[in-house]
Amino acid sequence: MEEKDMKNNAGKIQIKPYKKDAGYSYTLGAFPTYELLLTRPEKVLKVAVHSSYTDMEGLYDICRKRNIPVEINDKLIGKLSDKENCYVAGIFEKYTCRLSEDKPHIVLVNPSNMGNLGTILRTMVGFGIYDLAIILPGADIFNPKCVRASMGALFKVNFRFFESFDDYRRQFGRHDIFTFMLNGERTLNIADCPKSKLFTLVFGNEAAGLDDSFLNVGTSVKIPQTKDVDSLNLTIAVGIGAYVFTNQGCK
Amino acid sequence: MEEKDMKNNAGKIQIKPYKKDAGYSYTLGAFPTYELLLTRPEKVLKVAVHSSYTDMEGLYDICRKRNIPVEINDKLIGKLSDKENCYVAGIFEKYTCRLSEDKPHIVLVNPSNMGNLGTILRTMVGFGIYDLAIILPGADIFNPKCVRASMGALFKVNFRFFESFDDYRRQFGRHDIFTFMLNGERTLNIADCPKSKLFTLVFGNEAAGLDDSFLNVGTSVKIPQTKDVDSLNLTIAVGIGAYVFTNQGCK
Repeated sequence: MEEKDMKNNAGKIQIKPYKKDAGYSYTLGAFPTYELLLTRPEKVLKVAVHSSYTDMEGLYDICRKRNIPVEINDKLIGKLSDKENCYVAGIFEKYTCRLSEDKPHIVLVNPSNMGNLGTILRTMVGFGIYDLAIILPGADIFNPKCVRASMGALFKVNFRFFESFDDYRRQFGRHDIFTFMLNGERTLNIADCPKSKLFTLVFGNEAAGLDDSFLNVGTSVKIPQTKDVDSLNLTIAVGIGAYVFTNQGCK
Repeated sequence: MEEKDMKNNAGKIQIKPYKKDAGYSYTLGAFPTYELLLTRPEKVLKVAVHSSYTDMEGLYDICRKRNIPVEINDKLIGKLSDKENCYVAGIFEKYTCRLSEDKPHIVLVNPSNMGNLGTILRTMVGFGIYDLAIILPGADIFNPKCVRASMGALFKVNFRFFESFDDYRRQFGRHDIFTFMLNGERTLNIADCPKSKLFTLVFGNEAAGLDDSFLNVGTSVKIPQTKDVDSLNLTIAVGIGAYVFTNQGCK
């Protein structure tokens, strides 16, 4: 369905539980729905509210100003959410983005877990990184589980999919590349952390990490860790990488 | 049931899906089960293996040396695990620990999510912190979801429950306390991170954080973050705190 048609037919579309190939997705819960309304209002098809929601006024006000339909629809909320304490859902049409050429990036190679992907979106926005490249195959960024884990941070991020890391690299040749690997050549110590104004931090899949071909791409770094764990959780690795590279003391 | 009785009757106990008040819990998956067998062998009641598991030899070998019963039991594996790709489970009796007096600690005030708690266990072990205090109420550390998220790191940690932070503090008066708060007085910058050899890092609940009474306990610190997120995910905050305080460049 064309974008314009979808907007015009918002009232008539029968909203169903999420499918990857659908043209729309939804936020569950008031906080991510507010983030959606404030950040991507032009993408919102409608907002559904449960009749027992207690802060109708504020929500109606925002939607009225942006000409977004709101409906009280307990049945729809029940159908979309498997949690009992969900009172608001925002249905939005999917969209595509372009990455900024002069801003830092994060690259995730084949991320597989939607909750992790959402947490990474929230974390990168928390540290002021707003551009994300995903090397396919990867978890579905529009899945409501990912949207929810991102706490709405998804809507503040430019994301783009690439068939391979080489494809990404061909488009963004000016960025300093840092690959996070257990066998990285440089240890990410606070005393001498790498410095770059235009950086790309690259992280591998939850189970497999980055393969050794990434040792030859830019600078490979390892987060110091004990031998008592197999590795750090992917989200933790991204959090520490983003913290170190964006922290002012490092510049 | 007394500890000794439970061990002696291991073969007769009918293992059921997890309950919080049961005297035992279990690991799901080969990796956490190996961690259990290597770290807390004296607590293992038995190991159950699915008939299609392909690495029987190694597992049998470890169990034989430690006098731990192993049984092929597809039905039990199916009953304990809701994932299709689980082939090994280790049933162990619950235990209590004491915290080290001369090692760094992490304190979690009312952690509510079992997955987060498991990820935090994995992360702290990754950074060489092996002592965890939980201020009650808190998520059940022995729940299989937590055990699994910890990837078996649970077994390497000394943990203990306290009714209040004051109770904890009365027992461990020598530790330098650092409370992680959005309105913390000191910003956790890389250039001048706080230094301490015997520290306790304190983190609040996922939804509420630490209340303002913690501003008067030790040094309150905030992780620098943009206004584009409400806060960082709890696990990310713990990861960054643990990284900064244990990183050698900081000492």
